[in-house]
Amino acid sequence: MPRTRITRLRKYAVEDRAVLDTLLDTARVAHVGLVDDDWPVVIPTGVARDGDNVILHGSTGSHWMRTLASGAPACVTVTSLEGLVVARAAFESSMHYRSAVVFGVAQPVDGDEKRRVLDVITDTLIPGRAAEVRPHSDKELAATQLLRLPIEHWSLKAAHSWPEDLPNDIDGPAWAGVVPMHITYDDPLPRPTSPPASTYRHRCGT
Amino acid sequence: MPRTRITRLRKYAVEDRAVLDTLLDTARVAHVGLVDDDWPVVIPTGVARDGDNVILHGSTGSHWMRTLASGAPACVTVTSLEGLVVARAAFESSMHYRSAVVFGVAQPVDGDEKRRVLDVITDTLIPGRAAEVRPHSDKELAATQLLRLPIEHWSLKAAHSWPEDLPNDIDGPAWAGVVPMHITYDDPLPRPTSPPASTYRHRCGT
Repeated sequence: MPRTRITRLRKYAVEDRAVLDTLLDTARVAHVGLVDDDWPVVIPTGVARDGDNVILHGSTGSHWMRTLASGAPACVTVTSLEGLVVARAAFESSMHYRSAVVFGVAQPVDGDEKRRVLDVITDTLIPGRAAEVRPHSDKELAATQLLRLPIEHWSLKAAHSWPEDLPNDIDGPAWAGVVPMHITYDDPLPRPTSPPASTYRHRCGT
Repeated sequence: MPRTRITRLRKYAVEDRAVLDTLLDTARVAHVGLVDDDWPVVIPTGVARDGDNVILHGSTGSHWMRTLASGAPACVTVTSLEGLVVARAAFESSMHYRSAVVFGVAQPVDGDEKRRVLDVITDTLIPGRAAEVRPHSDKELAATQLLRLPIEHWSLKAAHSWPEDLPNDIDGPAWAGVVPMHITYDDPLPRPTSPPASTYRHRCGT
């Protein structure tokens, strides 16, 4: 059985690659799983997408980055929590979410590609930012481990249903519905001596 | 070296158990790592805390729940993303976050404890909700795998700093600062035929 086959709640499975791309492009954080000395390890880290690759980065001194760079199998999970589903029975309560899993082996990005892909990360977090900052120094490039994971083996679920109350529960007294959730960007806080915050909230917003 | 020893960015390490408890009590979702056929798997799932245990639950038919229930090593990671740190150089940019990792082997919760701990989950998501809904049916209890993971081996990082611009970058033209982020709960959407939404937004709010 393929590793990416969804076996539970198949009604939520999404096979449209564009839905995956949107999730990867807006998620900001992925949870990366690897196996270290027979134990699972799950690391939260910034995430971006460059075409058909998930992009991860970190310090060249990071143990988990070195492990992935050496060819260890990886699982990159990206989740957007979008609501609480309040059913009349606790058992039927759940959440609204989009969540994707990408399995594979990551490959280091080096050479001329490194600057370009680092800019993709920067512009994913804040569109247009890469053009505002100075170029990476050689020292910074040398200190950064950049990895790409091909988007080949993946699955995605998207759940946005009303609560599915049992017929006997429908007339019960408890409230039922959905409490939507989303990420809010507050007003930017300028670092002391910084120019005006201008449009930063807007540029980060969903 | 203990698995939970923080080796990178030790300045962000937090050893106060109360900080961990607050994060676990408010995170709603954990990313659970396990090893399946030599591959890492990372699953997003609802999370709660019952005293000195992390609580996970799912279907008894779920492959990953069965794997954990059989004694497979687990890594439960909980992350709260709280801001974008916009430094004058891309390299120094980062995020505000709290993130914790709990390692261990989960144990099934059965018998009389099961109803009580399921209510802990319900009340973690919406305080007071367990008292509003009917008791779990025997069929629902039998269909639910409930696991507790002792909070013994854990680590936590909390990063809430201003951007650390290099001296040569301080006078650069780019804006620098922090864009705070938080989860917003929107107005509850009642399921058709449901009683008034009343206070649900407030009760879920941060």
